[in-house]
Amino acid sequence: MNTIQSDNYPIYFENSIDELANFVKQGHYSRFFILTDENTAEHCLPLVKSKIEDQDNFDIIEINAGEESKDIDFCIGVWKMLIDFGADRKSLLINLGGGVISDLGGFAASTFKRGIDFVHVPTTLLSQVDASVGGKTGIDIDSIKNIIGTFTQPKAVFIELGFLDTLPPRQILSGLAEMLKHGLIQDAAYWHQLKASDLTKPSAELVHRSVAIKNKITIEDPHEKGIRKALNFGHTIGHAVETWSLINDKDHLSHGEAIAIGMICEAYLAHKKTNLPAGDLQEITATLNSLYPRYTIEESSFDTLFEYMKKDKKNQSGNINCTLLTNIGVCNIDNICTEAELRDSLLYYINL
Amino acid sequence: MNTIQSDNYPIYFENSIDELANFVKQGHYSRFFILTDENTAEHCLPLVKSKIEDQDNFDIIEINAGEESKDIDFCIGVWKMLIDFGADRKSLLINLGGGVISDLGGFAASTFKRGIDFVHVPTTLLSQVDASVGGKTGIDIDSIKNIIGTFTQPKAVFIELGFLDTLPPRQILSGLAEMLKHGLIQDAAYWHQLKASDLTKPSAELVHRSVAIKNKITIEDPHEKGIRKALNFGHTIGHAVETWSLINDKDHLSHGEAIAIGMICEAYLAHKKTNLPAGDLQEITATLNSLYPRYTIEESSFDTLFEYMKKDKKNQSGNINCTLLTNIGVCNIDNICTEAELRDSLLYYINL
Repeated sequence: MNTIQSDNYPIYFENSIDELANFVKQGHYSRFFILTDENTAEHCLPLVKSKIEDQDNFDIIEINAGEESKDIDFCIGVWKMLIDFGADRKSLLINLGGGVISDLGGFAASTFKRGIDFVHVPTTLLSQVDASVGGKTGIDIDSIKNIIGTFTQPKAVFIELGFLDTLPPRQILSGLAEMLKHGLIQDAAYWHQLKASDLTKPSAELVHRSVAIKNKITIEDPHEKGIRKALNFGHTIGHAVETWSLINDKDHLSHGEAIAIGMICEAYLAHKKTNLPAGDLQEITATLNSLYPRYTIEESSFDTLFEYMKKDKKNQSGNINCTLLTNIGVCNIDNICTEAELRDSLLYYINL
Repeated sequence: MNTIQSDNYPIYFENSIDELANFVKQGHYSRFFILTDENTAEHCLPLVKSKIEDQDNFDIIEINAGEESKDIDFCIGVWKMLIDFGADRKSLLINLGGGVISDLGGFAASTFKRGIDFVHVPTTLLSQVDASVGGKTGIDIDSIKNIIGTFTQPKAVFIELGFLDTLPPRQILSGLAEMLKHGLIQDAAYWHQLKASDLTKPSAELVHRSVAIKNKITIEDPHEKGIRKALNFGHTIGHAVETWSLINDKDHLSHGEAIAIGMICEAYLAHKKTNLPAGDLQEITATLNSLYPRYTIEESSFDTLFEYMKKDKKNQSGNINCTLLTNIGVCNIDNICTEAELRDSLLYYINL
């Protein structure tokens, strides 16, 4: 499994924790901080610790697992811990966890003392194929996802596939949604390969291919001026449904579950607006509907969902903007959608 | 008065508010937000408004004047206002105010939706010669100054010297400390020119010269890896005294008053450690002591001051780092100072 070269930093796939230990040993840093949550502290931190020779210079910052920890209040907590532990500009932050850890840790590091270095050790499938690649950092305010953030690249990413063995099936499915998206927006062959695979445990080869697709797009357009918007397929509606669920459901949707709903709705929009063939729409709908649990969306929630969509970062001048498809494997960015169109697409999902 | 070209952005000195109106009219932006405080809303906003033709697309975000507003809590307030007003990625934030407004506004803009454009309209002498130039943004946590921030350049700076007419003398003195510093670290002739000038109302030529010095240094070293540390002369001790005063005094020191104390102490350290001639030390001490009011520092506060100094961003591995002088007009960066040396320098000030 080749190391992927991103924008001035490597993404390791083999012996990754050994590579991390080597990186630490190179002597560029004065101090090390590992950002973790109670899950990765239990399942992943022991392996990391066992590989690092000099542990005296390491401090652990542990936050609660879950999307709630991406709120600005937790970010302030991380900053205060870095202050209290005496972190200086030559410190390194190691983000050991899922997307919450890498998004929050990346933002905290990129702004602490105007920026310290950080690396990602993604421990979930979702963060391996999505959050850890591409240099976006972000935190939430009032449950508005990633409303605050920076574009800052990590110094390296260490993908340890063994960590996936400890994940519950629902978390694998969450990451899988982004992998399916990579096929839908860019690579029809990959979509078909995924459909033919055992998706309860995606192979190293599939993870590598997803990272390669995302990496290629983000290198081409790091600041999301154009083609990077391709990655937003399913996310205009998906993020709104995710925010709704986060606020209203005790056992809320995972990111991937919400994005799967978003992809079904936006495939419908694509059929109506960008000529996605009916057969492709049917194939996408059937595949996602068979993999992901049904979710009840009441029509009474539509107006709130539209409000969330209007706050989406991709929009300009108050218009709601979607990335759609023209075929499986081919996307089309910057489609303004009306509330009536969005309503129809949600009804399409509801009436499946 | 020539426009100064900085790192891809212009710094205007003549007809600056007309230039701002032209900039707004060019049509690059969907919405405009003016960050202001109650003072600039009264004294500066009317001129800005009178020059702008289409005011429908403008919203005002007003915060309380004063260093306290640089706290993260106020930054969250600015972010929430931008969310509520529907700011999108094509919005422009216009920072109309002193250093608090430009530091806070710059940080809020550089992180909102992963970065929107901003410009500075500095309204105090301090912000004209210091905060608005060089691309540093910053906010405070627990009164630790600029502990969180980014390096992000504005799209333009509009220096309107007429705004200085409304400032009280104490605020002119605050900015003057940074101008005197520019002479001390880089340009002996400028230092002597300043000493010979009417310093109750610095001329446009002097302001221009200070901006040119700061701009030259920050272009050469935008991320403070080397020569930019020259600008920290007086700030290791000055920032600690400023933080102390901010926490303990009802009528706290201005930034410049604190930096003047810091420059006297650090000139003493320079005499002891980097061979600043006794005559130069005497000249610096006499000049600053005659311009700035005396401030009482108790020996019982020294340990707290050292704690603040240790949290300074310039430090590495727990050592306290100072920029010193070898002569008036020549500086020497990266001098590690012991607590005993710092104690002596504070006693030098106390015993003047």
